[in-house]
Amino acid sequence: MPVSEFDLIRQFFSRATAARADVLLGIGDDCALLQPPSGRVLAVSMDTLVEGRHFLPGSDPVALGHKALAVNLSDLAAMGAEPAWATLALTLPGADTVWLAGFMDGFAALAAEYAVQLVGGDTTRGPLCITVQVHGFVDPDKALRRSGGRAGDRLFLSGQIGDASLALAMLQRGAVFPPEFDSLRRRLDRPEPRIALGRLLRGRAHAAIDVSDGLVADLGHVCAASGLGAVIELGRLPVSAAVGEQCVRGNWQYALAGGDDYELVFSVEPAQVDALLGVCADASQPIQEIGRLVDDSGIALVYPDGRVSKETPFGFDHFRT
Amino acid sequence: MPVSEFDLIRQFFSRATAARADVLLGIGDDCALLQPPSGRVLAVSMDTLVEGRHFLPGSDPVALGHKALAVNLSDLAAMGAEPAWATLALTLPGADTVWLAGFMDGFAALAAEYAVQLVGGDTTRGPLCITVQVHGFVDPDKALRRSGGRAGDRLFLSGQIGDASLALAMLQRGAVFPPEFDSLRRRLDRPEPRIALGRLLRGRAHAAIDVSDGLVADLGHVCAASGLGAVIELGRLPVSAAVGEQCVRGNWQYALAGGDDYELVFSVEPAQVDALLGVCADASQPIQEIGRLVDDSGIALVYPDGRVSKETPFGFDHFRT
Repeated sequence: MPVSEFDLIRQFFSRATAARADVLLGIGDDCALLQPPSGRVLAVSMDTLVEGRHFLPGSDPVALGHKALAVNLSDLAAMGAEPAWATLALTLPGADTVWLAGFMDGFAALAAEYAVQLVGGDTTRGPLCITVQVHGFVDPDKALRRSGGRAGDRLFLSGQIGDASLALAMLQRGAVFPPEFDSLRRRLDRPEPRIALGRLLRGRAHAAIDVSDGLVADLGHVCAASGLGAVIELGRLPVSAAVGEQCVRGNWQYALAGGDDYELVFSVEPAQVDALLGVCADASQPIQEIGRLVDDSGIALVYPDGRVSKETPFGFDHFRT
Repeated sequence: MPVSEFDLIRQFFSRATAARADVLLGIGDDCALLQPPSGRVLAVSMDTLVEGRHFLPGSDPVALGHKALAVNLSDLAAMGAEPAWATLALTLPGADTVWLAGFMDGFAALAAEYAVQLVGGDTTRGPLCITVQVHGFVDPDKALRRSGGRAGDRLFLSGQIGDASLALAMLQRGAVFPPEFDSLRRRLDRPEPRIALGRLLRGRAHAAIDVSDGLVADLGHVCAASGLGAVIELGRLPVSAAVGEQCVRGNWQYALAGGDDYELVFSVEPAQVDALLGVCADASQPIQEIGRLVDDSGIALVYPDGRVSKETPFGFDHFRT
C-alpha cells in the first residue's frame, strides 16, 4: 500500500513533540497559530543540512534528527533566547518509514529537553535536505547581538573546540580509528546547544556568536559587526587531548577553522568577569578566557612561543572554491 | 575571485526587501529579532519547492522567486492572516549570481506588494531546493481554520481552477503550444496569493483552504477536519475556456485534481452569502459558488448530466506511487 505524504506527516510529525500552551493550532492546517508572550520579542533562525555537504551519505537518522534541531537551537543560545517552536522542511528521496522514525526520535528527544514543539513544515521528495526553523523569546534589551562587543572586553569560549572537525577529518580519511575517535565523533554527530549558558549570558555578555563555521571565521563576524579586532591567545584555547596533539604539531586548523562544534564565543566587560565565572561554575557551564577585543581590525593570533600573526586558516564556506 | 556564501547573502538578501518597523534585527546575526503586535497571534507556514518535482529544470529564476514566496503567502491568505516576515533557505548547485539576482528580483517584487520583509535564512550548496517560511498576524477568533465548516454551508471558489495543471501537462507533452498557452502558463509560473480575499473572509467564512494539491484533495481536508462531507456541482466550477474544453471531453482532472492554482475554497453560512457576494464584488474579487457542505463524509460530484459519483481523481501527492 502506498504511503502518502499526509499519512507520513500524521504518523511522525503530529505526535513528535510535546504540546505547548502557546500553540493555538499546530500541524494540520494551512498555518500554525502561535501566541508569543507579551513584552518579549521573537528570535528566529533557520539552518539547512544537505546530504554530502553537511553530513555523510548513510548517516544515522537519529543523529541527523538531533543535529538538525541542535544547530538551530545553538543560534537561539547565541542570542540568549528561550526556545519555543520549530518548523521542519524535509526533502527525502523516498518514503522510508524506518529512516523517518529514527529521524523523528532524534529530533523529538532534543525537542523534549528544551520544551520545543514542532508546529509545522513540509515534506517533499528529492535529494535529502533538511531545513529547520526555530522560534524563541528574548527581552529585546538583553538579546546577545554580534554588534555588542566593546574594546577591552575579554573573550570567552564555552566547552572545547575542534573535536567535531577532527572527527570529520578522521572519517574522511577512513583509516583505523584511534581509541578517542568515539568521543570526538559524538561531538560531531550530537552537538549540544548551549542554551543554559546563553541564559546566563543575558545581561552579562556584550556580544556572542555560536561557532558553526570555525572560531576565527565566527569571531570575525563579531569583530566586523562591533567594528573591532580581536586577539586570541592560542595557548589558552580549551581543547581535548586529541585536538591539543594536533595543535602541538602545528595543525591549528581544527581548533581555529573547524566548524560544527556549536560552542559559544562571547565578550565580557572586565568588571563582569568574576561574577560570570562564578555563575558559570555554579551552573557547571565550563567557559575559558581565550583573548580580548581590541580597538583594531582583524584577528591576531598569539602562538604559545610568543609569535603573533594575522594569517589564519579560513572557516568552512559552502561557496568558496 | 571566489564568491563566498557571506558575500552572496550580503549582496542579494539584505537589500532584497523593504524595512519594516517591527523588525528589530534582520539578516546578519544568529537570529532575527521580531516584534509581534499585541492582541494578535502569529500565523506561520513553510513550503518547499524542489527542482524536478515542483518546477522543471531550467525554470526562469524570476518566476521561481515569485512562486516560492507566493505559495507560502497563499497559506496566510487561506488563514485570513496579514503577511509580515519571511525566511528563505536556498540550496543551490553553485554560486550563479545571475540566477540569484533573478530569483531575488521575483521574490522581492512580490514581497514589496505585501510589505513582507526577508529577515533571515540559510544558503547552502546542493541540488536546487527552495524552502520559504512566512509569518503573518491574525486575530485568533477570526482565523479561518479548516475545521470551521458547518453542515449546510455554501462552498465557494475564488478565481478559476485547473489552468496551472493544464499548462504543466502541455509543457510535459512538449507539443506545439496553442494560443491560450501563455495565459495558462502565467497561472502556473506566477500564482497570485489571494491575500485580499482572505482579508474579506475573516469573520465571514467558516472554513477555508488554498488549493495547492487539487480541489478534491484540499476540500477533502476541510471535510475531514470539519467532520463533514461535500457536494460539488461540476457545472458550476469556474474554469477558463481551455480547461472547460477539457471538462467537456471528460478530462476533469485539471479542474478537480490539478495542483498549483492557489485559489481559495471556503465555506459560508447561507445567511452570509449575499453580504459576502457584495463585498467581493465591491473589491473586484471574483468568487463562484460550487456546492455545499453536508452531514455526510467524502465528496460527491454532481456531473452536468445529473450523474452523481464519489469516484474522484487524486490530488498531487509527492509520495503516492
